[in-house]
Amino acid sequence: MNYPSIHLENVINEFSKLPGVGSRTALRFALHLLDEDEKTCNALADSIRLMKSEIKLCKHCFSVSDSEECEVCKDTKRNHSIICVVENIRDVMAIENTNSYNGVYHVLGGIISPIDGIGAADIRIKELVERIAKQNIEEIILALPTTMEGDTTCFYINKLIKDFNIKVTAIARGISIGDNIEYADEVTLSRSIMNRQPFNAMKM
Amino acid sequence: MNYPSIHLENVINEFSKLPGVGSRTALRFALHLLDEDEKTCNALADSIRLMKSEIKLCKHCFSVSDSEECEVCKDTKRNHSIICVVENIRDVMAIENTNSYNGVYHVLGGIISPIDGIGAADIRIKELVERIAKQNIEEIILALPTTMEGDTTCFYINKLIKDFNIKVTAIARGISIGDNIEYADEVTLSRSIMNRQPFNAMKM
Repeated sequence: MNYPSIHLENVINEFSKLPGVGSRTALRFALHLLDEDEKTCNALADSIRLMKSEIKLCKHCFSVSDSEECEVCKDTKRNHSIICVVENIRDVMAIENTNSYNGVYHVLGGIISPIDGIGAADIRIKELVERIAKQNIEEIILALPTTMEGDTTCFYINKLIKDFNIKVTAIARGISIGDNIEYADEVTLSRSIMNRQPFNAMKM
Repeated sequence: MNYPSIHLENVINEFSKLPGVGSRTALRFALHLLDEDEKTCNALADSIRLMKSEIKLCKHCFSVSDSEECEVCKDTKRNHSIICVVENIRDVMAIENTNSYNGVYHVLGGIISPIDGIGAADIRIKELVERIAKQNIEEIILALPTTMEGDTTCFYINKLIKDFNIKVTAIARGISIGDNIEYADEVTLSRSIMNRQPFNAMKM
C-alpha cells in the first residue's frame, strides 16, 4: 500500500514489527495515535524509551526489575531456600499472580530447543548451578513448559544438580481444575492415572 | 496483575490505549520490546513522536501529508474539478490503492451521527462548500459508508450544494464482485435489482 506520508509509513513499519501485528493493524494504531493529542502520543513514545533504558535484570534471579535486585529477591519474608525455575518473566508474573508461592525464582530466559538452535549454554543454567553452589538451597521447583523441550531442560538441570543432594520437584501435571475427564487429552489422562496421588494428602 | 517494574507497567498502560489491545497483548508487546535491542525500541518511540509533530493536514483536502499540500492535491496531472468526499484518511488510502480514480479528495473527518453527538458542524462540510464556491468543480462523488449515518451525511451535503448545479454522484452499491447472489443480504439484493443498470453501459 502507498501511504500519504513518510512519517506515517515509518510508524506503520515499526508497529508491524510487534508480535501479531500486520500492516493493517499497524495502520489502525497509527491513525488512532494521529487522532489523539500530542500528550498521549508522547506518553507512549517516552514510556517505551524509558522502559528500555531503565529496566534492569535482577542480579540474583534475572527477572525484570527497576533496581539491581527485584522485589521478590529483596523481600526478606520470602523463603530464599526454595528456587522456582521458570522459562521467562511472563511465568514469574503468572505464578506471582496466584499468591500461592513464597519462595524465589530463577529465570532461564529460554528452554533447551535444538530445533531453534538453543542449547544449554544459551540459557541461564550455569547461573542456576552457581546459585545452588553458593547459597543454602533446600528445594528446586522445575516450573517449565510440559513440552518435549521443557522436559529436556528439566532432565538436564536435574542431572546437573544431582550431586548437590537437594530436593528437586516439578509442578503437578494432570487434569486442569474445572475440566471434565471426558474432554481431557489421552496423554494427560494417562499420565494423571499413572501419577495418581493419595487423596488425603491432596490439596483441593 | 502486578508487574515487577513500574516502567514495564507504564508501557503496558500506554499500549492498552491502542484500539483492540488489552493488557495481555500490551504485555506481549512490552516483553517483545524488552527482548529487542535498544535501537529497535527507540526507532518505534521516535517514529511515533516524529509522526505526531511532523504530519500535517493538507490545506485543500484535509488528508494527511508531509507538507501543506498533499501529494494528490499537488499533482497537476489529476482532475481537480472532481472531488471525492470520504469519511477519513483510511478511505483515501483505500481508493488510491485501486488506481482507478484520477480526481481529488475531501476528507470530512467523520460522518453525521446524532447518537455519537456528531453534527454537521463537527465535520468539514463547511470547508467542502467553500471549496465548491471558490473552485470550478464539475462533479462531487459521495464515497461515504452505506450506513444510516453515511446516507444522512450524503443527503445533507446534496441538499446543501444543490444550488451550485454540480453533478452529484455516489459510489455504486450492489453485489460485491465475486459474490454469489444467494449469499447476498436481502437489502443489498433488493436495492441492486431496483438500481439495475444497462448491461452494455456497465464496466465489467
